[in-house]
Amino acid sequence: MEEYLEFAKDIAYQAGKIMIKYFNQKNDASYKEDKTIVTIADTEINSYLIKRVKEKYPEHSVDGEEEQFGISNFVWVCDPIDGTAMYARHIPVAVFSLALVIDGVPNVGVVYDPFTDNLYTAIKGKGAYKNNEKISVNDYTLDDMKTVCHYDLWPNAEYNISKVIQELEQRAYFISVGSIIRACMCVASGDFTLAIFPGTKHKNCDIAAVKVIVEEVGGKVTDLFGNEQRYDKSIKGAIISNGKVHDEVLETIKKYIIKE
Amino acid sequence: MEEYLEFAKDIAYQAGKIMIKYFNQKNDASYKEDKTIVTIADTEINSYLIKRVKEKYPEHSVDGEEEQFGISNFVWVCDPIDGTAMYARHIPVAVFSLALVIDGVPNVGVVYDPFTDNLYTAIKGKGAYKNNEKISVNDYTLDDMKTVCHYDLWPNAEYNISKVIQELEQRAYFISVGSIIRACMCVASGDFTLAIFPGTKHKNCDIAAVKVIVEEVGGKVTDLFGNEQRYDKSIKGAIISNGKVHDEVLETIKKYIIKE
Repeated sequence: MEEYLEFAKDIAYQAGKIMIKYFNQKNDASYKEDKTIVTIADTEINSYLIKRVKEKYPEHSVDGEEEQFGISNFVWVCDPIDGTAMYARHIPVAVFSLALVIDGVPNVGVVYDPFTDNLYTAIKGKGAYKNNEKISVNDYTLDDMKTVCHYDLWPNAEYNISKVIQELEQRAYFISVGSIIRACMCVASGDFTLAIFPGTKHKNCDIAAVKVIVEEVGGKVTDLFGNEQRYDKSIKGAIISNGKVHDEVLETIKKYIIKE
Repeated sequence: MEEYLEFAKDIAYQAGKIMIKYFNQKNDASYKEDKTIVTIADTEINSYLIKRVKEKYPEHSVDGEEEQFGISNFVWVCDPIDGTAMYARHIPVAVFSLALVIDGVPNVGVVYDPFTDNLYTAIKGKGAYKNNEKISVNDYTLDDMKTVCHYDLWPNAEYNISKVIQELEQRAYFISVGSIIRACMCVASGDFTLAIFPGTKHKNCDIAAVKVIVEEVGGKVTDLFGNEQRYDKSIKGAIISNGKVHDEVLETIKKYIIKE
């Protein structure tokens, strides 16, 4: 697994260079039919990843947001740029995310924020790090003054969590930072207590790396209904928390969202 | 006015240095009773501004988020760090904002984003610039695929705009970038089409600089009900737009919000 992690880290730094290269250029955003924004950088990173995996692990497959390759139970699940809406508008909140998912379980995860030069890494069972330093979730409750939570609400969400947020924001401070994965790294480092991800229709690759990183620092990641799920196919949203608030959030979700 | 602008620009760059200095330090956030986060940097910038104004324009007054000084019809209205919730959690979305408001009207405005080194400046009647280059609002409609809008929803908002957002997001893509002023600079540069600001109770200093910058590039800034307002006292929220979508947004607001 250490070898896989080194491979993933190297790709993350290369991806970061591509992100920075295009960040200050004139608007290169094109628009998909579903209004998601995809930039040249996104596509370039995805192609680069596939090239590298083909060279080094030709028996593995790649599930990238923009492009896929191969079929295997070893899947490199990648979101080339999470936070494209921010990135495309020159707001420096976007990260690269890559996980090696084996039989549905993220075993290795890296997330790189090139704007603050923070690299988050994890191997399942071996802990997680931010720039090689130990990090950990906080121990705040929902009602703690220090608690900050992240939510996403968007038209293409798999589940509509607006009523859940309306109830929870009576107790805790909710913001939306423009990148679910960046927000989850705030959970991992103790800056945030919770992130709620409503899922994206027909998109698998959002939070595979998050799963292993957040859990290796003592947090908890489940689907919106408290269950474990595979991270190499479409997911039923996710709750990413410090562990402590997880059950309370699940109770609120049960009141408003019916599991399909 | 040019002299005032040079003065404001110099302070903006100094404020940016203070922002960067504290950004990577261990969490220095303390918490006000109303759950707003105020950092050491916030207070240091506010004090610095007051010191500089006292030295150069002792007859002027200062209305800073953290500290005020004097009474005058020449008011330096300042938000030392807009986006403190992001800033305090090491997410690089926060700006310094300063305006010279004369008899309630912003005549000079500067906004500085130290993370991307972008300085937005304006003098009323003389145009606005981003790093000395001309910028302008876009000409998108609400239903344009390229339209992105910013909203803020928070517990201390003067007005609850959640129903307005619910209706408008059927037509346009809404995100919340964590700093209203940063979002408004995206309106000024054409990256965003609209920002809706619900106001903050007992706080005047949010968007005085925005008013002059956005209007000098062809946009429109009014209160939530379409009226002009003074920017040296509490404001009735704001709509910050490319001009083109302004009236439609007003119509939607009328349906859901009663003017107090």
